[in-house]
Amino acid sequence: MIASPAAPCAFGTHRVLEPTGTLPQAAWRLDSTPVAHANELLCDVDVLNIDSASFTQIAAQCGDDPEAIAAHIRETVATRGKQHNAVTGSGGMFVGRIAAVGEARTDRATLAVGDRIASLVSLTLTPLHLDEILAVDVATHRVRVRGTAVLFASGSFAKLPDDIDADVALSVLDVAGAPAQVRRLAAPGQTVCVIGADGKSGMLACAQAKSRVGPLGRVVGIVPQADTPGARLLTAAGYVDDLIVADARDALAVLAAIPSALPALADLVVNCVNVAGTELASILCARDEGVVYFFSMATSFTAAALGAEGVGKDITMIVGNGYAKGHAEVALQTLRERPPLLAYFNARYGARS
Amino acid sequence: MIASPAAPCAFGTHRVLEPTGTLPQAAWRLDSTPVAHANELLCDVDVLNIDSASFTQIAAQCGDDPEAIAAHIRETVATRGKQHNAVTGSGGMFVGRIAAVGEARTDRATLAVGDRIASLVSLTLTPLHLDEILAVDVATHRVRVRGTAVLFASGSFAKLPDDIDADVALSVLDVAGAPAQVRRLAAPGQTVCVIGADGKSGMLACAQAKSRVGPLGRVVGIVPQADTPGARLLTAAGYVDDLIVADARDALAVLAAIPSALPALADLVVNCVNVAGTELASILCARDEGVVYFFSMATSFTAAALGAEGVGKDITMIVGNGYAKGHAEVALQTLRERPPLLAYFNARYGARS
Repeated sequence: MIASPAAPCAFGTHRVLEPTGTLPQAAWRLDSTPVAHANELLCDVDVLNIDSASFTQIAAQCGDDPEAIAAHIRETVATRGKQHNAVTGSGGMFVGRIAAVGEARTDRATLAVGDRIASLVSLTLTPLHLDEILAVDVATHRVRVRGTAVLFASGSFAKLPDDIDADVALSVLDVAGAPAQVRRLAAPGQTVCVIGADGKSGMLACAQAKSRVGPLGRVVGIVPQADTPGARLLTAAGYVDDLIVADARDALAVLAAIPSALPALADLVVNCVNVAGTELASILCARDEGVVYFFSMATSFTAAALGAEGVGKDITMIVGNGYAKGHAEVALQTLRERPPLLAYFNARYGARS
Repeated sequence: MIASPAAPCAFGTHRVLEPTGTLPQAAWRLDSTPVAHANELLCDVDVLNIDSASFTQIAAQCGDDPEAIAAHIRETVATRGKQHNAVTGSGGMFVGRIAAVGEARTDRATLAVGDRIASLVSLTLTPLHLDEILAVDVATHRVRVRGTAVLFASGSFAKLPDDIDADVALSVLDVAGAPAQVRRLAAPGQTVCVIGADGKSGMLACAQAKSRVGPLGRVVGIVPQADTPGARLLTAAGYVDDLIVADARDALAVLAAIPSALPALADLVVNCVNVAGTELASILCARDEGVVYFFSMATSFTAAALGAEGVGKDITMIVGNGYAKGHAEVALQTLRERPPLLAYFNARYGARS
């Protein structure tokens, strides 16, 4: 089932039904016809991982009833041709198998029908057609379905590995940008500070940072509590050289900890916290001409910009990009090469957990 | 009048009265006692340039009555020790003369009592004491006063030049970060795209970009209209090689203009627009592994982060930092070296305008 319109767009504008003149994410309705146009990948979908904010909203509206939630999702996808929550504006990702490869795709040689993949672009821009909803798991926000989805030329995805539990792989792929960007930005001998070090992305960031800075460098994590399993593992496995126990929203508390833990400040600060109000602490931890990488989606652009200006810090502040070439492989490899981290993720995010 | 407490803080926490444990910007009330502690600069203030959002709000609340506006400002400064608008959260800057230099300042040798300066940090974090409000100019948002202000060690300021009209200098210093950052980021032979090219910061950014990329590079401006005085000057003076006339909120319109105007996309995209919703157009103009510099305070962090991920663009997105070493001098020099640009700024922002 391969069709070829005149010139399909890398960003999928050829699938936009209304309003015309928008990109798929901004569109109200997409054409989800299950064919692979020249630059598309058609996939058989078996799981939707609904975004946490979206699922929570839908579940609340449906009184946590799986049948009602299924009906809600069925209705959204039938109406819009995508799983785009109109209230939260968010989507999620899908897991499935390649069903057809468009004949103009440059990655044709590396793909085979039947390959098991996870999408790494939002469901809010992914043409989706559902034949059936089989089960809704309210606890994990996962929906088992029979359906099809389309990935555009610009749509990122990852083949699921054979050697890592699928649920663990998905939890890592969800934050794949963090370890990949840290691997690029950190250099041997540097001091790296990871704020929110004991969260999912923070632990991957610390592990990559320690490998990159090497024995002459230092990795300092900031965590709200010293005795969480994550914080203990960071120290025990040597993914950090030091931990600062402080609430990152309290800039003065962080400032007070700097003389002993970060006497020369950090060359690179990685913000992985999922709460608002941590921009200033991040800025204060960076040395003059250092880099602050904001991976947290709770970051306020103006708080960062005005914060740096207010304290006269000549630093480079980077907006976290969830996409980077090879990021899925870097993230999975971060686990594979570190048995203690893999064991922690298996226990916490694996199918048995 | 120089006093020396135990250890004054570079960020001014020693001036915070309440709540304790905050930095000056977050504080409700500052100690504005007119003395210069060891690392401080005490200034005699004669003009407050109230931030546009703040002044508009105050003027509306006071029915545009200068007397009422003066009373509002007097009350705020008396209560809080700073001109911090509680509704908009914004402040402005001041113009004055150096009155005393703290004995521990590292820049003592370069400063003299009587030097005329403009503060480059927000009034929301600047201890301010007012003796008298002399006049409120509703048209320019400027308030003539007699008072004193304190700059901390971390507080940025600029000496006002003798050779540039003070109002023109202030209008340039207000956006000094843009030309300074462009000068750092652009390199010979590159293609630079400036979105919002005909605004104040956009024109300075184009002029700097063209000098940096040189004859083998290209500067492309995106403007909403081709026939504004600013757009015409950009072309006539050679600050851009090409103009794209498009609404930057319309990502598809920008996308349609790319094949002819930016066939290989841009190495550096500088966003200087002051409207929301231009993140995706900025991202689409950047080449793979290029840089997008968001100088616009209307930038949404999540729109940028999710936008790049959604279209699979492996780019570096930078949060505009209003501060950079030497930024005031770079910005003023950008005008000095370009008579047509200086003439345009004199006509538009000068005392006669």
